[in-house]
Order: sequence, then structure tokens, then C-alpha cells
Amino acid sequence: MRFFEDIAVGQRRELGSFTFTAELIKKFAAQFDPQRFHLDEEAGRNSLFGGLAASGWHVGSVCMKLLVADAQRQAREMTARGEPVAVWGPSPGFRELRWIRPVLAGDTITYASEVESVRSSEKRPEWGIVQARNTGTNQRGELTYSLLATAFAPRRNRG
Amino acid sequence: MRFFEDIAVGQRRELGSFTFTAELIKKFAAQFDPQRFHLDEEAGRNSLFGGLAASGWHVGSVCMKLLVADAQRQAREMTARGEPVAVWGPSPGFRELRWIRPVLAGDTITYASEVESVRSSEKRPEWGIVQARNTGTNQRGELTYSLLATAFAPRRNRG
Repeated sequence: MRFFEDIAVGQRRELGSFTFTAELIKKFAAQFDPQRFHLDEEAGRNSLFGGLAASGWHVGSVCMKLLVADAQRQAREMTARGEPVAVWGPSPGFRELRWIRPVLAGDTITYASEVESVRSSEKRPEWGIVQARNTGTNQRGELTYSLLATAFAPRRNRG
Repeated sequence: MRFFEDIAVGQRRELGSFTFTAELIKKFAAQFDPQRFHLDEEAGRNSLFGGLAASGWHVGSVCMKLLVADAQRQAREMTARGEPVAVWGPSPGFRELRWIRPVLAGDTITYASEVESVRSSEKRPEWGIVQARNTGTNQRGELTYSLLATAFAPRRNRG
């Protein structure tokens, strides 16, 4: 992945799309979020969601999956061009996760990540702090998911 | 679950424990977070984590699993006592998710949820807004995970 110096506010990556089938929604829910509207079509229809709805943790985990795939793709392309690949630090967490609209069985969510702020780290001058807004949009163009992620990107010239 | 009027700051629920085996860590990571330190023991040892580490999304999804189980247990107990069970609204999201320490293969995380604030909703007088701090603590008593969740709890006397 890229070094801190190469990252600028507004840079956007399209991460790809994922279709939440009824089968996948139920499989995730049975393991991690066994509420009835995530497990059963009729219970979903009778809920505020109006249909079998994916667990919000499923929607977030799929975003992670596509972020990792994108980072790996980017790293391969940089390696192929002979460029050095930066190793990012572990994420300390994130802020402002929002489940804006339900994700229902059959919905295809397209994820993207856009850099919202960059700043140097006072405590650790060899790292920069990047905040990116990760979003998921459904097939009707409606925003369903948003998360403000924090990450540490290494500087090319450390100190 | 309980009505808004019965919820007070400081109320705490112990949600139970979960052991993150190497097998479960790799299974989740293969589906949702295929970074090497989540998939391979040696890659984990050579990473900043110092061992095969669970995906942060896995740590959060297990917390959700235990929250749902606790709510279902609570609802059954209330029904058995003949008390009315409140139906909470869907979560709009959360704030301040923190992965404080890595969760390594073999670690047992004990989760809890504590009410941090309660307030009435100006827009929707039939609901109250509850913020709870969900935490995960490892077998050495070290805090590994923290999340500030927001939920809508119905009022017993609506309006």
C-alpha cells in the first residue's frame, strides 16, 4: 500500500460489490447475530426492516473483506511496477459507524473508501494518521453504510 | 428486554466468555479479513501482534452474538415472570470502537455491557436513547475491546 506522503484528502478507491443473498445473510446471523429478522424471511417482513435483513456486523465485515482485497491488489500492482510497498500499522479502531438503511436479501452493495483527513502523528513522527470514510451504497444508489476509519500509514522518509 | 423507564446509568450486564481458537480465528479471517497475521501462526508471530490474531471484526461480531444471547435470556426470564417484554428499535450504529489489545489464539474474552447515558428523544417522544459501553477483557484482566453503542428503547408509557 501507499506511503503517507502519497495520500491526499479526496482520494477515492472503489472497492467492489457484494450481493447479500438470503443464504449468506442467514449463515452470518446464525453465527453472530441470531435475531429473528436476520434469520427468517417472514420475521423480516414483519419487522421494521420490511424484509430479511443482513446483520449490520455482516455489512461491516464484507466491507473489511473488500478493503483487504483492494489493498492486496494495490500491493501486487505496486510490486509489479517495482515500487516499494508500505506496511500499514494495525488499526486502533474507528468512529461513527452508521447503519443508514437496511440491507435486504438480494441487495447488491457497492463499497468505496475516500480519504477524509491526513495528519502527522505527534507521538510517532515515523507515522501519519489517515482517516477514511468507508461507504456502502445499494443498487438504487442509496447510502446504506458509513464508517470513519483511522489508520497509521508509514512515512517514506522516517524522521 | 427492558423499557426505557427501567434503565439507569451504571447498570451492567455480564454477557459471558468466548475462547478464540486458532481454527475459529482462521475461519472468520478467510471469509472476511484475509490478512496474513489472521490466517497463519508464523505470520502472526512475525507481526506487531506477536501471534495469530483475531480480526477486529471477529472480536466485535462475537460481542454481538453474546449481546443477542443475553437479550434473549432476559426476555425469556421476563416472560416467565409474566412481565411485558419491550421491543427495542434497530440500532442506528455506534461510536468509538476501539481495538485496544490484540486477541490471540487461545485467548478467552469476557464481554460486558454497561449503561453510560440515558436520555429522552426529542424527535420521537415514545422512545428513549440509551448509550452502553460494551467491553471485552482477556483472561489476564486486560481490556482488549471497547465500543459505545446507541440504542432506542421504548417507553412504557408512550407519550
